[in-house]
Amino acid sequence: MRQIHLNEIYHLYIACLNNQDWDKLGTFISNDVRYNEKLISLAGYRAMLEGDFLAIPDLRFEIEILISDENHVASRLQFDCTPHGRLFGMDVNGKRIKFSENVIYQFRDHKIVSVWSVIDKAAIAAQL
Amino acid sequence: MRQIHLNEIYHLYIACLNNQDWDKLGTFISNDVRYNEKLISLAGYRAMLEGDFLAIPDLRFEIEILISDENHVASRLQFDCTPHGRLFGMDVNGKRIKFSENVIYQFRDHKIVSVWSVIDKAAIAAQL
Repeated sequence: MRQIHLNEIYHLYIACLNNQDWDKLGTFISNDVRYNEKLISLAGYRAMLEGDFLAIPDLRFEIEILISDENHVASRLQFDCTPHGRLFGMDVNGKRIKFSENVIYQFRDHKIVSVWSVIDKAAIAAQL
Repeated sequence: MRQIHLNEIYHLYIACLNNQDWDKLGTFISNDVRYNEKLISLAGYRAMLEGDFLAIPDLRFEIEILISDENHVASRLQFDCTPHGRLFGMDVNGKRIKFSENVIYQFRDHKIVSVWSVIDKAAIAAQL
């Protein structure tokens, strides 16, 4: 049951991102969240996401694969978007690109406390 | 029980890679395996791994995080190695580098049939 529960929470989290419903972000993200080992806190996490949507106005998180156990979620996310200007140090300048992210989340008390993300930046470079 | 079982199979698979025990690879990898959506077959998978060990003689797969459900394994792998020459199009030339891979595997009949891998190549570039 617990496993299904994290899947459900994760779907709600992704909907929160896609709706840019930042006031609800604290429902899913712990105050002391770490992103790729760095303590960035909930405020830093929100600022990162707000920055992502500024750089990519049509950003949308699509779950391709979702796996969970009692304390973790792993997912493969797909992006199909048109970033303005530069992204990850590359000049995208409004070109439509598709790329993937494999990401693992650790949960504690139903909130995300740690995120380990790898974005396929090489795939973006190959499309430019 | 099934979930624990895939974790155990995965640990044996990683040991097989670290031992370069290629004759056992077919115990873990399906004949019609796909790697990042491309059908490469068991022979192609073996050739890819043999090429990895040629490029990186001290290659070692270390599991940092392991998550599984009935049909999938997700893991975060860590690498700490000294590739010869070029790796992923970058001139590494024997420098010691550390990087991560977030990878998801789909299993069928206890064998890996599909792999979705994202390697943190940007982390390597930042170390050169």
